[in-house]
Amino acid sequence: MFNKRKVVHSKDVAQATHEALLRRGVTLESIAKIVYEMQLPYNEGLKMAHCLESVKGVLKKRELQHAILVGIELDELAEKGMLSEPLQQIVVADEGLFGVDETIALGAVFTYGSIAVTTFGHLDKNKIGIINDLDTKKGNGVHTFLDDLVASVAACASSRIAHRTRDLEEAGETFDDIAPDETMPETNVKGAQT
Amino acid sequence: MFNKRKVVHSKDVAQATHEALLRRGVTLESIAKIVYEMQLPYNEGLKMAHCLESVKGVLKKRELQHAILVGIELDELAEKGMLSEPLQQIVVADEGLFGVDETIALGAVFTYGSIAVTTFGHLDKNKIGIINDLDTKKGNGVHTFLDDLVASVAACASSRIAHRTRDLEEAGETFDDIAPDETMPETNVKGAQT
Amino acid sequence: MFNKRKVVHSKDVAQATHEALLRRGVTLESIAKIVYEMQLPYNEGLKMAHCLESVKGVLKKRELQHAILVGIELDELAEKGMLSEPLQQIVVADEGLFGVDETIALGAVFTYGSIAVTTFGHLDKNKIGIINDLDTKKGNGVHTFLDDLVASVAACASSRIAHRTRDLEEAGETFDDIAPDETMPETNVKGAQT
Amino acid sequence: MFNKRKVVHSKDVAQATHEALLRRGVTLESIAKIVYEMQLPYNEGLKMAHCLESVKGVLKKRELQHAILVGIELDELAEKGMLSEPLQQIVVADEGLFGVDETIALGAVFTYGSIAVTTFGHLDKNKIGIINDLDTKKGNGVHTFLDDLVASVAACASSRIAHRTRDLEEAGETFDDIAPDETMPETNVKGAQT
Repeated sequence: MFNKRKVVHSKDVAQATHEALLRRGVTLESIAKIVYEMQLPYNEGLKMAHCLESVKGVLKKRELQHAILVGIELDELAEKGMLSEPLQQIVVADEGLFGVDETIALGAVFTYGSIAVTTFGHLDKNKIGIINDLDTKKGNGVHTFLDDLVASVAACASSRIAHRTRDLEEAGETFDDIAPDETMPETNVKGAQT
Repeated sequence: MFNKRKVVHSKDVAQATHEALLRRGVTLESIAKIVYEMQLPYNEGLKMAHCLESVKGVLKKRELQHAILVGIELDELAEKGMLSEPLQQIVVADEGLFGVDETIALGAVFTYGSIAVTTFGHLDKNKIGIINDLDTKKGNGVHTFLDDLVASVAACASSRIAHRTRDLEEAGETFDDIAPDETMPETNVKGAQT
Repeated sequence: MFNKRKVVHSKDVAQATHEALLRRGVTLESIAKIVYEMQLPYNEGLKMAHCLESVKGVLKKRELQHAILVGIELDELAEKGMLSEPLQQIVVADEGLFGVDETIALGAVFTYGSIAVTTFGHLDKNKIGIINDLDTKKGNGVHTFLDDLVASVAACASSRIAHRTRDLEEAGETFDDIAPDETMPETNVKGAQT
Repeated sequence: MFNKRKVVHSKDVAQATHEALLRRGVTLESIAKIVYEMQLPYNEGLKMAHCLESVKGVLKKRELQHAILVGIELDELAEKGMLSEPLQQIVVADEGLFGVDETIALGAVFTYGSIAVTTFGHLDKNKIGIINDLDTKKGNGVHTFLDDLVASVAACASSRIAHRTRDLEEAGETFDDIAPDETMPETNVKGAQT
């Protein structure tokens, strides 16, 4: 029945991730705004364009793409009432003690180190920007997984900026000195870990 | 459309978890066998009954129940071809670089400490007992999430035995001295963390 | 030279942990205050005595005791200038990209589930109560590890309260109905996982 | 007394890490051998030189460098009998329930995704190659932290190879087609996340 040997191409996974975010009302700009707010106090010369580049960069990572695809799938199935009970009700109610949403998001967060983890916890608790708009408890749709995933992407991109800042300092530079596409130089290299 | 305030009772979550495992062909005994194999070398007097009790005990934890419900849901949806592409294909093929299955399982593993994490890694890699039978790549069904979840339950139950052993040692006892229902005394207490 | 077979008794580890916290100026009450502040909004009838009981309870866990002993040891060695370079300078400066302090604290946090992780991130970022007083960058001493460890204990105790609340709800009760020593009933049982 | 504002340069941290590994008897080649053994079954054309390059590459990451510096420091202090009791005895005996060594190693492992975590668990349990030689329980020295750290580096480097394999497959290539210094192309870029 199934073709267990067919391998999905990386490009298809990346494209599906971007489409899923947009379909659920999350623009990369809205995530970049959170990153900007988090990192501006520590980064002279940081611009929205650097933050947007960092969001795009971390979204090239497989761990993040897979987490987003699974989480949005579960949100959408719940909205259609297609999950079996009692999971359907647990997801729809975004129950406080249900932690699989945070767990999936954390898997991606970990790849950007411990700064990313504390930033994620902060964003998850304080629901800044679009993360607040997505709160399942307030709106009509079900975004039980998505709000954590957006916090995860924002935390990863913030952590990436923080590490880059340090490199720039050691080179006697600031974000003022670099173009947006120099924010994550590794993403411009063919074959780099994504 | 949805009742976002309805709260699912703990008993219903626990029961759904047990039913889901059985429906997917995983008995508690088959998990206990793995625990027994892992812990026997270090535990004088350990019996299958203690291991079974430990499996039952860790399955009372919300983190494990939620992880199992989500994972089995995704496996079953994939079997019915009901996930959207490309996630459907990724799950059906149990792709090596897809790590959300391990991530969900790890969230539960963490609650039993670092011994549980290394045991999980070992089980996940070496696919002992029923974990091997569930391998998606070999059989007909889709158990991409379930094999990791079973490894997770076995790792948690093994870790619980290891911690209990130490307590017994300090009391000058071994598993030979205790009845199966004394394996996880905390699970006999009303209101204990589950 | 060393006795590699001598096993330290659990009681000695527990006592050393309490002494280390007090020696570094951290009372259990100061941690309980953070827990109270975090959980009061969600918990009718919650009293400081329940929070203190929860702090005492989570401190019975080996994972937390070991983390605290290692972290405080490193802080104290750094204060005495006894770490080798460059680690000595990294710890003394509490460098932003140094994450081993958060990592050690997180190992303990994980044992209380995903709620504990986000609470930890929040506390680590927003430095509430005694966590702020311990900030290495502001004071004279070195508390690079300890501030994260206190955040960890507070996060674990908060998570424990949140899980207990849910159990009470299902029994038609609130914290108003239970005595402080019923906060973590599992800790009153001999042989329970600690 | 301390200069809390002095920032240690990345190069000094990297160099100290390499020196610490060598001082403790761990060559990069000995780690690369483990990687080679783990990845050869899945990788046509993989050579030791690629594995060595991968080990060097992951050692450029701050998370790994910091973890190694802290772990080796604790091992060396324990060997000199300079840790306070009861931590001194716990580390010297490499107690089974002491998990801070695994926790510190895991913090680094997480940055290479879930494959790295299961590989780490496997290596930690089965003690392949130099990891076995370092076993504190068998030898004279104290390597309670180092054996886990070596498992961590090997797990990260293995995971990096696995991800690279996939990229090569999509380009219609194998490791046979690439020079060793193309194993981790991101490490050749100035300002890349390390």
